[in-house]
Amino acid sequence: MTNEQERNLTMLCDFYELTMGNGYLAAGMADRICYFDLFFRAVPDGGGYAIAAGLEQVIDYVNGLHFGPDDIAYLRGRGIFSEEFLRYLADFRFTGDIWAVPEGTPVFPREPLIVVRAPAIQAQLLETYMLCVMNHQSLIATKASRIVRAAKGRTVLEFGSRRAQGADGAIVGARAAYIGGCAGTACAISDQLYGVPAGGTMAHAWVQMFDTELDAFRAYCRTYPTSATLLVDTYNTLQSGVPNAIRAFDEILKPMGIKKCGIRLDSGDLAYLSRQARKMLDEAGWTECTITCSNALDEYLIRDLIGQGACIDCFGVGERLITAKSDPVFGGVYKLVAVERADGIITPKIKISENVGKITNPHFKKLYRFYARDTGKAIADWLCVHDEKPDDSGTLEIFDPEATWKRKRVYDFTAKELLVPIFQAGRQVYEKPALEDIKAYCAAQLGTLWDEVRRFENPHHYYVDLSQKLWDIKNDLLHGKR
Amino acid sequence: MTNEQERNLTMLCDFYELTMGNGYLAAGMADRICYFDLFFRAVPDGGGYAIAAGLEQVIDYVNGLHFGPDDIAYLRGRGIFSEEFLRYLADFRFTGDIWAVPEGTPVFPREPLIVVRAPAIQAQLLETYMLCVMNHQSLIATKASRIVRAAKGRTVLEFGSRRAQGADGAIVGARAAYIGGCAGTACAISDQLYGVPAGGTMAHAWVQMFDTELDAFRAYCRTYPTSATLLVDTYNTLQSGVPNAIRAFDEILKPMGIKKCGIRLDSGDLAYLSRQARKMLDEAGWTECTITCSNALDEYLIRDLIGQGACIDCFGVGERLITAKSDPVFGGVYKLVAVERADGIITPKIKISENVGKITNPHFKKLYRFYARDTGKAIADWLCVHDEKPDDSGTLEIFDPEATWKRKRVYDFTAKELLVPIFQAGRQVYEKPALEDIKAYCAAQLGTLWDEVRRFENPHHYYVDLSQKLWDIKNDLLHGKR
Repeated sequence: MTNEQERNLTMLCDFYELTMGNGYLAAGMADRICYFDLFFRAVPDGGGYAIAAGLEQVIDYVNGLHFGPDDIAYLRGRGIFSEEFLRYLADFRFTGDIWAVPEGTPVFPREPLIVVRAPAIQAQLLETYMLCVMNHQSLIATKASRIVRAAKGRTVLEFGSRRAQGADGAIVGARAAYIGGCAGTACAISDQLYGVPAGGTMAHAWVQMFDTELDAFRAYCRTYPTSATLLVDTYNTLQSGVPNAIRAFDEILKPMGIKKCGIRLDSGDLAYLSRQARKMLDEAGWTECTITCSNALDEYLIRDLIGQGACIDCFGVGERLITAKSDPVFGGVYKLVAVERADGIITPKIKISENVGKITNPHFKKLYRFYARDTGKAIADWLCVHDEKPDDSGTLEIFDPEATWKRKRVYDFTAKELLVPIFQAGRQVYEKPALEDIKAYCAAQLGTLWDEVRRFENPHHYYVDLSQKLWDIKNDLLHGKR
Repeated sequence: MTNEQERNLTMLCDFYELTMGNGYLAAGMADRICYFDLFFRAVPDGGGYAIAAGLEQVIDYVNGLHFGPDDIAYLRGRGIFSEEFLRYLADFRFTGDIWAVPEGTPVFPREPLIVVRAPAIQAQLLETYMLCVMNHQSLIATKASRIVRAAKGRTVLEFGSRRAQGADGAIVGARAAYIGGCAGTACAISDQLYGVPAGGTMAHAWVQMFDTELDAFRAYCRTYPTSATLLVDTYNTLQSGVPNAIRAFDEILKPMGIKKCGIRLDSGDLAYLSRQARKMLDEAGWTECTITCSNALDEYLIRDLIGQGACIDCFGVGERLITAKSDPVFGGVYKLVAVERADGIITPKIKISENVGKITNPHFKKLYRFYARDTGKAIADWLCVHDEKPDDSGTLEIFDPEATWKRKRVYDFTAKELLVPIFQAGRQVYEKPALEDIKAYCAAQLGTLWDEVRRFENPHHYYVDLSQKLWDIKNDLLHGKR
């Protein structure tokens, strides 16, 4: 059972979705079919790509949408909603269509991660929760992807529950970190609910609880001989912690023929201490003893530690991952892009803004990714009107929507549609992949990006181009021609 | 019904709490009484104080602690826990004592916000969830307090659900923001569950849904004549939005004799646009029309906007409040400070560290705040051993624990104990205050701080001093004399 199935989060909406819903009903617009795009405008940390995550929780939420008697009573008590609207809510369920990019997909600014087609009240109501979940999990998956790449093949574990922004921040945050590449988490409930492998050994309190550090280490090795990772920095890492760990390993593990064990450093200069500890462990014959480090790590510190020759096998990453500390907001938005008349004609809509960056891509759209047939690498993404389809049998000219003279001919490519059907007429038509499969898909798709796009600083700007037809429609709307 | 009551979050723990618990039981230490302090080391954003928040959720969590059959089955499946430990968990309930600083209290680094006295396994198990909740809500309450002070009496509303880090980030985040001084939230469920006043009017989609902006405004004013706040930046704020708003007010509100209404700006230069909008509204006779602004605001931007003469009555603050974007981690920790022998003798414990800042204040302690009798202002906080009590009838010499030659004589003061009993022998003895009372208490207590402590940058360092007895014990432990 997932968290979402236990809780009814229908009321986790911005109040304006309810005032607008009541207003749509009053204005006779309740059943007008609308199209909304969920997209983001910039990659956190100035990165070149983001990782989409959170769809599973969106699906659970949409399936569970309903207003219970408590909800209706609360809303009636507010004194501004019509009884007709409250009756509408009492019978509410989602009847629309949803398309989305699968979880784990690398995604780019201004392309829809989710498209909703639904009657106005329904489409509007989804806004806050969908954004909250997609923004949060995409933020953490993206950050995890950066940190894992910085670790260059070493293990990265998510250790941040205690610093997460609330329970869900910890629980589904660990899930998103796993999708983004972490090997596991310290959070037990994320394992239980979602299958994110959880592990952990001891806190400083364990060491303090015994009369001596050596006694604490001995007791731990006795209880967990095959998984003993000892925390060595409670008193003095090199003078006390590491020697006592070696002594406990010698006394208890060696006679059992066990060679696998570990130590953890949680303070001090991790580069220096890990090198010294490695030397001491190797000299004592504990060459298979792993060294785990933690203490406010992120992709920049990990890169520096590795550059300084730190002997670290595993990074435990806490607060800077679970809150994406250096840039803790994923700026996804949810915007009306079209409305459909009763006769099925779709009218594109645009939001103009004083801030140019806030202007939307109008219309009901499709999203394609072009992969080179020879290298398998992603060349560009291509947004088009819903009734278009790229011809990947020949050559296609694409252009930068912000500098239309920048044109490029692509050929020898295959076009893959990224938005897949999730709900049709309110019914879930998408089979949720297993978490392991999402994680593997994410790793494989990351492999299709050029290194230039994956750079930490000043990455290459990946192309997200518009079809000529879509660009013409947007341009006409901007000039008031439609 | 609160969120916590619906969900069993007992398993929201770091896995090491379970491995240690199993180990304590194996080592015969399960029932050893331990004392843990929950405290933090630095105020976010370099501020001079933090606001404690989250206690209500901690209380709900402790009352609900239990391991269900699913939890036991999951743990058994991990294959490392003894059946004796699993039986212990099946019967688990909290039987210890908890003291805490009431929610809304301004608090300072290195003083305990929560003290737990409980058998080892129990005390250890509380760590992750308590830290997660206290860190999260104290972070947001502290940030809200800064933002509200920047607004100098103008209304601040919390608008950030969509950018929160998960559902709880939004739901209890809004609660914490309210404690810290926000007047309300956009998040409907925070109102329903916790009584944080929620409100909201329209998104850009409302305006786009109608044939014209004027039609959209008219429809809104007709449905909500007494609470019409119109979003005026969908097309062009000054050329279209504000004139259309005035026209809708004139046509629909004026004949009804309604003078109270509002507009909202969500993009562009808010200082310029708000001044121009104010002029246009005043000239049209809508002097009581309020101007609400939103768009990535925080305490710094609000201070600048007010300095530039912006005509803003209400700030809607989103992502930078709900994630505390500029410093999104509240670094609370939970450390063993003492253990109690079977004969009741309490042995203080210390954690030494290569990082001096990570050294703990040992022992079971009490925390007092000294208020000047004449001004009512807070002079200093004073940490002492549990069996001490400050004599506030005369003069007391206090000193800086890091620079002991800095001494100060305090007199004419009253000493108030800050840590109050919450649980005794597992039974809740504290009556949870109403949210409104917490908010009012927070505002009143903030008033006891000198302006120098409340400064945004380089605030005065508020004194948190140790009693001589406590300082001596700490010093002895550091020098290995105990």
